[in-house]
Amino acid sequence: MADHLEATTETVQHVCNMEEVQGGDEGGNLLSKKQFSEQNAFNLVHDELRIAIKVAMPSPKRLMHRFLENTKEVLYPDDPLRQFKHQPASRKCFLGLKYLMPILDWVQDYKLSYLKSDLIAGITIATLAVPQGIGFARVAGLPPIVGLYTSFLPPLLYGLFGSSKDIAVGPGSILSILIGSLLRENIGPEEPPDSFVRLAFTATFFAGLFQAALGVFRLGFMIDFMSRAATIGFISGAAVVVCLQQLKGILGITNFTKKTDINSVMHSVWADPDMWNWRTAVIAACFLVFLLVAKKLSNQKKKLFWISPGAQMASIVLTTIFVYITHAYQHIGTVGTLKKGLNPLSVKYIYFHGPYALKAMKIGLIIGMINVMETIAVGRTFAAKKNNKIDGNKEIVALGIVNLTGSCFSCYISSGAISRSAINFDAGCKTALSNIITATLVMITLLVLTPLFHYTPNVILSAIVFVAVIGLIDVKGAHFTWRVDKLDSLACLGAFFGVIFLSINAGLLIAVSISVAKILLHVARPHTAVLGIIPKTSIYQDIQHYADAIQIPRILIIRIDAPICFINANYIKERILRWVDEKEEYNGQKLIVQYVIVDLTQFNESF
Amino acid sequence: MADHLEATTETVQHVCNMEEVQGGDEGGNLLSKKQFSEQNAFNLVHDELRIAIKVAMPSPKRLMHRFLENTKEVLYPDDPLRQFKHQPASRKCFLGLKYLMPILDWVQDYKLSYLKSDLIAGITIATLAVPQGIGFARVAGLPPIVGLYTSFLPPLLYGLFGSSKDIAVGPGSILSILIGSLLRENIGPEEPPDSFVRLAFTATFFAGLFQAALGVFRLGFMIDFMSRAATIGFISGAAVVVCLQQLKGILGITNFTKKTDINSVMHSVWADPDMWNWRTAVIAACFLVFLLVAKKLSNQKKKLFWISPGAQMASIVLTTIFVYITHAYQHIGTVGTLKKGLNPLSVKYIYFHGPYALKAMKIGLIIGMINVMETIAVGRTFAAKKNNKIDGNKEIVALGIVNLTGSCFSCYISSGAISRSAINFDAGCKTALSNIITATLVMITLLVLTPLFHYTPNVILSAIVFVAVIGLIDVKGAHFTWRVDKLDSLACLGAFFGVIFLSINAGLLIAVSISVAKILLHVARPHTAVLGIIPKTSIYQDIQHYADAIQIPRILIIRIDAPICFINANYIKERILRWVDEKEEYNGQKLIVQYVIVDLTQFNESF
Repeated sequence: MADHLEATTETVQHVCNMEEVQGGDEGGNLLSKKQFSEQNAFNLVHDELRIAIKVAMPSPKRLMHRFLENTKEVLYPDDPLRQFKHQPASRKCFLGLKYLMPILDWVQDYKLSYLKSDLIAGITIATLAVPQGIGFARVAGLPPIVGLYTSFLPPLLYGLFGSSKDIAVGPGSILSILIGSLLRENIGPEEPPDSFVRLAFTATFFAGLFQAALGVFRLGFMIDFMSRAATIGFISGAAVVVCLQQLKGILGITNFTKKTDINSVMHSVWADPDMWNWRTAVIAACFLVFLLVAKKLSNQKKKLFWISPGAQMASIVLTTIFVYITHAYQHIGTVGTLKKGLNPLSVKYIYFHGPYALKAMKIGLIIGMINVMETIAVGRTFAAKKNNKIDGNKEIVALGIVNLTGSCFSCYISSGAISRSAINFDAGCKTALSNIITATLVMITLLVLTPLFHYTPNVILSAIVFVAVIGLIDVKGAHFTWRVDKLDSLACLGAFFGVIFLSINAGLLIAVSISVAKILLHVARPHTAVLGIIPKTSIYQDIQHYADAIQIPRILIIRIDAPICFINANYIKERILRWVDEKEEYNGQKLIVQYVIVDLTQFNESF
Repeated sequence: MADHLEATTETVQHVCNMEEVQGGDEGGNLLSKKQFSEQNAFNLVHDELRIAIKVAMPSPKRLMHRFLENTKEVLYPDDPLRQFKHQPASRKCFLGLKYLMPILDWVQDYKLSYLKSDLIAGITIATLAVPQGIGFARVAGLPPIVGLYTSFLPPLLYGLFGSSKDIAVGPGSILSILIGSLLRENIGPEEPPDSFVRLAFTATFFAGLFQAALGVFRLGFMIDFMSRAATIGFISGAAVVVCLQQLKGILGITNFTKKTDINSVMHSVWADPDMWNWRTAVIAACFLVFLLVAKKLSNQKKKLFWISPGAQMASIVLTTIFVYITHAYQHIGTVGTLKKGLNPLSVKYIYFHGPYALKAMKIGLIIGMINVMETIAVGRTFAAKKNNKIDGNKEIVALGIVNLTGSCFSCYISSGAISRSAINFDAGCKTALSNIITATLVMITLLVLTPLFHYTPNVILSAIVFVAVIGLIDVKGAHFTWRVDKLDSLACLGAFFGVIFLSINAGLLIAVSISVAKILLHVARPHTAVLGIIPKTSIYQDIQHYADAIQIPRILIIRIDAPICFINANYIKERILRWVDEKEEYNGQKLIVQYVIVDLTQFNESF
């Protein structure tokens, strides 16, 4: 901060000594004679008011004290320990436990009237969770049963540790395509087949560990470094990629590319149109129309929220029965055998050392970050609708616990999925109990119903994923971004096309880079304003905004609208010199600038 | 900018409606009864002054116009075309040519009295340039003759295109160790031996191209992204690394590591102390003392600037004659045959395509950036001493031309070396002619004197490099950084230890990352202040700095000291809510906060 310039916080409003100012009538923004006499008249009034104002220097603080204070402000701006102040020890313990497990917070106030809402929401989400779980696992390239495992344990854990009541936790489309593409990049075809699943668990483990650390050390603010515009672009792009991937199941293509960019996918699709399976294509077409209409209805009226999940479950049931009766499974791909039973222990599959552990750490870092970003965004959206506050860091810790534990019990990464959370919200869930109900229903499915999915055709899962994901393409949001800020729009488009044409990682990198570059640009080129005095007041304001404000001859007053730091020190120096040149040029040779006053009012202690 | 919050630029100083304020005597910072009546008395005075102030919205601009204006402010804040305004066409042409080749600017005002100073400076620098050229080329791992080539053409070109008169251009120590370590990373031992030199030329070519583009598109501000503290750490670290590398020559070790980190180097040095060459060690010890004393003398008195270069040349001459007479060349390494003649064409060696071209681009980007940073820093330092301005972007274009042309004539990357520029300055050079004189003298050396270096021992070159580089270790600067800003100091230490213990690249990455992170942190956690009114005025100020300022009951006035953007929108929201909580807690249950006024005075149009 104090690299090149030193700033005092003294206000300039009392610095300008009017005695030294000679009147001038050079026209333009300068004082006219009449204005100048008015100005003098005002000045008399103002002089009476002029008093000495003491500026207290901040008391010198010890280095350690300052460090702790700044660290607290940076990492713990929400002051999480405030509620523990002035409490007896036993109460402190209970508050601490409640802080860790929010379920203790709401369970004692739970009313029976909530139960109906939570039950409806929980059942609805379960209806969605089962087919989507299987479908998203396929998107990630994992065995379908892993998707069901991930739909059981994570919502249960979230019910205990999560504080948002609206978030429905489970496998998500964006995270699934992301982890899938990252895993494929890191595992060659020559490696043992189980290494893919093992790396998925390991990456989930590290993602959870990373999230827990992020939450405890309150680094949640890092997710803010990706602007909303970039997020819209990234998520829309990923949604397009997921949709394109579904062409594999919809057209029944067997030799499909492992890459996610649009060129590779289109190449796979059009390589051999004769190999398209007309049966799956017909089924897909019919059910896509059916599911999209159902979704449209659900979206239009909040009360009809159940239509879309119902339609999805109906499609699953109908097609499964159809395939079983017509023996169509000889011609089209089905889910196949799913092992009955709850999540088996998978901690033995996790690589804790070796080259895979390193790769998994890298993947875990990326998916952990995106996961946090997505979940917090979802949580904030719904909290804002009910005017609730959401404690981001607490949510991050909860996510960390969910993923850390999940990875030890055959779950891959789970998040607060946008579409399911929306339905959860519409279904009127009251507490996190809805998540526990969902988990219970998925548990029953895992224990009893898995054999029923044997003949479920893959094509219907593809259609369900397609319908779930298509809503994430946020054209409206992109358009809004364009209207508000063109540079933000660039970040949005960059992320979108990066994801579609290059790869998911490339898009992510572009999104983060443009977001950060934009901030740096703002800091590197702060706005500077020339101030003029507003007649009859002692107020100096930007002459561009205040048409009345008049400049004082020979004195140039400049306000810098951002803190000075090493990035902009040179620019500000050069910009001030240019203002001087411009003012002198405007005046001609008659009036040179004698004083330059720089308004540094908003400059303050740096961290 | 307008991601989450929308800001108006209306000042708050006239928003606060005093009628609604009820007096309170809750003690602390709140108004006491006496103060409150004073306040009311003032208010009457103030009311007379209260007038309506019109705020002019900035006139709506067309998108293209706004885009062009912003682009101009971001990229061309110095308005380079200003001097061309209102000039006839012929004059415009001449001005343009002068702009490109500053030599036309100073040559017409050249006075004979300047010649003496320039001659002395030129000769002094040439005396340094020859041994340092050979020495730095060895640091980079390139043939010694390339160092001489680089000491001839670049100063000549810079004399024509450069605008700073103080910068002495030629091979530099930091760039040499950097390019050497980057090349070694990219070329394995199994590749053809000439590929090392070829890649060096190619990297220099791309560095030049990149620099020219950077200058033309005025992206010079990118070099500001590395803070001075980080730069001090990086350069000091690189200097330590170069010094350590000289142990090879000083101790005559034949089997020396290719890595630059301190562990590898120390391992090489202590692997077999019996292999140390006592002859070179003795010579090195004697001449190191001699050269360091000479340098100390030169640094103490500006008039004695010639002692250090003279001592270096004398050492070269003495040791060469000594080695020739005593036949010591059978026991210690010497420079060996240097081909007579000027720079041969090397454009045919440049890889314009293939994998090497890609690697060279990456290397060129890094060294080009560091080169620009170093040269501009040097130029600014000396310009500031004479109160001159330096046009950074013009310098960058000149550097680009120098390196681009140089790479086609067997030169590797050259920069404005700090130590030689300092001597140039002390020698009192008046214009860039000193560079041309240096180039002429090196040319004579190349044409006539190269055979004389045949018996020059490597150890004396190592000693000269050691002495040249040791001054770059900036302990004072690091200490100053520590005193001013602890976080900056972290960047400094991080860069320093990164370079020393990991690698030059790692140190560079650490330096840039910490610098950028620091800015992001500042933006993410802006300072917020609670404002109070200063009695008898209409001025509202930070209650922490103005002991007199008193808060108004039920009204919370907050000023945010940095522009709001997506990175800090959530933080600011939460921080304001915490201020409200704190104020209410302080008041007890009696006085709830009724109004929150946020001072957004310094918020303005975003880019």
